[in-house]
Amino acid sequence: MIPEPIKKLIDAFSRLPGVGPKTASRLVFFLLRTSEETLAETLAEALQNLRAGIDYCPTCFNIMEAGRSQCNVCANPDRKESLICVVEDPMDVLALERTSGFQGKYHVLHGALSPIEGIGPDDLHVSELLARVQSDDVGEVILATNPNMEGDATAMYLRQQLNSHDVQVTRLARGLPMGGDLEYADQNTLLRALLGRKNMD
Amino acid sequence: MIPEPIKKLIDAFSRLPGVGPKTASRLVFFLLRTSEETLAETLAEALQNLRAGIDYCPTCFNIMEAGRSQCNVCANPDRKESLICVVEDPMDVLALERTSGFQGKYHVLHGALSPIEGIGPDDLHVSELLARVQSDDVGEVILATNPNMEGDATAMYLRQQLNSHDVQVTRLARGLPMGGDLEYADQNTLLRALLGRKNMD
Repeated sequence: MIPEPIKKLIDAFSRLPGVGPKTASRLVFFLLRTSEETLAETLAEALQNLRAGIDYCPTCFNIMEAGRSQCNVCANPDRKESLICVVEDPMDVLALERTSGFQGKYHVLHGALSPIEGIGPDDLHVSELLARVQSDDVGEVILATNPNMEGDATAMYLRQQLNSHDVQVTRLARGLPMGGDLEYADQNTLLRALLGRKNMD
Repeated sequence: MIPEPIKKLIDAFSRLPGVGPKTASRLVFFLLRTSEETLAETLAEALQNLRAGIDYCPTCFNIMEAGRSQCNVCANPDRKESLICVVEDPMDVLALERTSGFQGKYHVLHGALSPIEGIGPDDLHVSELLARVQSDDVGEVILATNPNMEGDATAMYLRQQLNSHDVQVTRLARGLPMGGDLEYADQNTLLRALLGRKNMD
């Protein structure tokens, strides 16, 4: 019943996360109907240029435009060489940059340890991190992996690996999120907030 | 901070309905990370083939594969010529086909009357509908435009236009949706269900 070109595009859209067959067909019929005649073409072009136009920084493995030798952060002389923030994904770098609260450099692991998915240390950029800590004058490594099981396991593993290096290792603070409501906090978060309570001056 | 090819794709995705900048960047980073290496290319190709591969049926204006002379429904000799169901969009045809409860033909208006958006009868396939009713042996026209203000106005207009033709004009039933809960029905739906109550045999 549905013409082949529409079926193919619905199938392709459905493979995106959070997009089911219903949303996918809504998107396709929107593209057919929209007065922005070139939207489908613009989208196609942007998709084709995605992988070709993107490369990874050889130092921190953050995303950067292809053809450059370093990412913006690594190339910035104002950023502290001595402070490295370790994250799982390039999106985490963007999130931290939005805070404007970090003046060091990054190291992107591209994932987290997950025995279930068969992701071990060799699948992440761990050895490159250890080499950076060894060779550069790094004073502190902030482990900013996600606050979940995989992220915690990854942080624990990195902590051990960094033991033999003369470097301070820290982890992002846990506690109640800003604007949150005590009543609605889950028990693990509340327990963490309780255990991590601080003196008020 | 964000590389240009990624920014462009986020922009393009954001122009889709229901996709904000956050969802858009989640999609882009998924495409960068996914092990289905060709998904971005598959999507790009499907998008490029969309408009070229699709045409509209010259009789009912439903979508069909390009190069064909008629859509599947119009080409099917088992479908009743004498019964035409008028809908706003090709997606409505798919929804009705899924019910397996309609054996007639369709007529797709490609929109609804909307003075606010400046959509008048000349922007819809109204004259073609009247010509079909005039020339073919049509016994009944079902007005299946959406049950909202624009859809009702369109149905009302078509009702008037069809007055001069010797044809029965019907509208889809209004009432409580199946599986619904009386308590949660909005007052307009409930009022319609009350006014449209039927004898039980």
